[in-house]
Amino acid sequence: MMELRDRIKVIAFDVFGTVVDWHGSVKREVENMGLDVNADDFALAWRAGYQPAMAEVMDRGEWVILDVLHRRILDRVLAEFGLGDMDEVTRQHLNRVWHRLDPWPDSVEGLTRLKSKFMISTLSNGNIGLLAEMAKNAGLPWDVILCAETFRKYKPHPDTYRGVASTFELEPGAVMLAAAHHGDLEAARNCGLETAYIERPWEYGTREAKKTAPWDANTLHCKSIVDLAEQMGC
Amino acid sequence: MMELRDRIKVIAFDVFGTVVDWHGSVKREVENMGLDVNADDFALAWRAGYQPAMAEVMDRGEWVILDVLHRRILDRVLAEFGLGDMDEVTRQHLNRVWHRLDPWPDSVEGLTRLKSKFMISTLSNGNIGLLAEMAKNAGLPWDVILCAETFRKYKPHPDTYRGVASTFELEPGAVMLAAAHHGDLEAARNCGLETAYIERPWEYGTREAKKTAPWDANTLHCKSIVDLAEQMGC
Repeated sequence: MMELRDRIKVIAFDVFGTVVDWHGSVKREVENMGLDVNADDFALAWRAGYQPAMAEVMDRGEWVILDVLHRRILDRVLAEFGLGDMDEVTRQHLNRVWHRLDPWPDSVEGLTRLKSKFMISTLSNGNIGLLAEMAKNAGLPWDVILCAETFRKYKPHPDTYRGVASTFELEPGAVMLAAAHHGDLEAARNCGLETAYIERPWEYGTREAKKTAPWDANTLHCKSIVDLAEQMGC
Repeated sequence: MMELRDRIKVIAFDVFGTVVDWHGSVKREVENMGLDVNADDFALAWRAGYQPAMAEVMDRGEWVILDVLHRRILDRVLAEFGLGDMDEVTRQHLNRVWHRLDPWPDSVEGLTRLKSKFMISTLSNGNIGLLAEMAKNAGLPWDVILCAETFRKYKPHPDTYRGVASTFELEPGAVMLAAAHHGDLEAARNCGLETAYIERPWEYGTREAKKTAPWDANTLHCKSIVDLAEQMGC
């Protein structure tokens, strides 16, 4: 059988949590704005609205980009945290914190190394503008930005995983998804993609480490994106 | 009035002819394959099918990516040039020459300089896979690949030009289109974009120079992409 590193042509990355630290970045921004809330809880509450909001969009068969969903959730969370009087300009600024998330310390090096041998792509539920601005801010060297907006479907819809392969006229087995979330990887695997799990124990903050035990079903289990690069011979 | 270079946030580039030399690249590949045709004429004939094929797609209200249109035209042109017996594998390889086009000598330097200050994007009728592979082959440092496939419309449909602005939640006047084709620039201008004409006298080959006279309606007139970078203060 052909070696994995020769068979894979494209490595697509989940972004929120896998490449960038959404929790730490949102928490820092909320603290720097001097908002009178527990910034840790605020970040978690904002993110908690994410899956239900996307599921509702998919159930309705409509298409709405993530910037708009983030804003709907933000307005609700601000009210819940007693900040319902925040002005419109500040809300718009805060909502774009998702364009300014910081990478994990190994992300830029790992991606840069992988880029020397593979096509590296996003496969995120973020929208194109969000991901392009994040990449420019954070120095993420993507070859191409593919995302829910490209395919008009949110992950874990099969059109997103299969869409990466069909964009490059490849069989699904020539594409690998790298993600810090077993559910995302399972959905990709069900579409025929190879999968690499990336450990991100502090994705939900530093109060408690996320469980990062290996699942046998994944093709690779990696401590970081640099570890993925090493395992792929880069 | 705010300076142009402070007002513009995104510079979107036409690609075929403006950033890469489609004629010279196709001609060289046809010569290297040893096909018994005039390679200059063959390249021109293939490209001549491009506008009508896109117009037909738009008239029908369907969506078909450029790789597929290139292949339909190629099959017709091969027959016209007496090469109708070319096998399927060779046709597929030849059709992907559009993924392997060479940049003009100033393109990589000019784009790299512009990238230091602006978001740089494609706005091409090529499909995402074609443009991503071309960028990787040619070292084109795009921040993001936007194209007809992103918006499911071919230029000069207004949704493509306006789509670049709305991707970044910008007014059209914060976006500049750079292109070697006055018609493309005119369509962009009608959508409120700023425009930069790039001189590419050898776009259709070296037998005769293309006319590159300035049009007053364009915001900038540039000898090259490096000249555009200089005019934009990069």
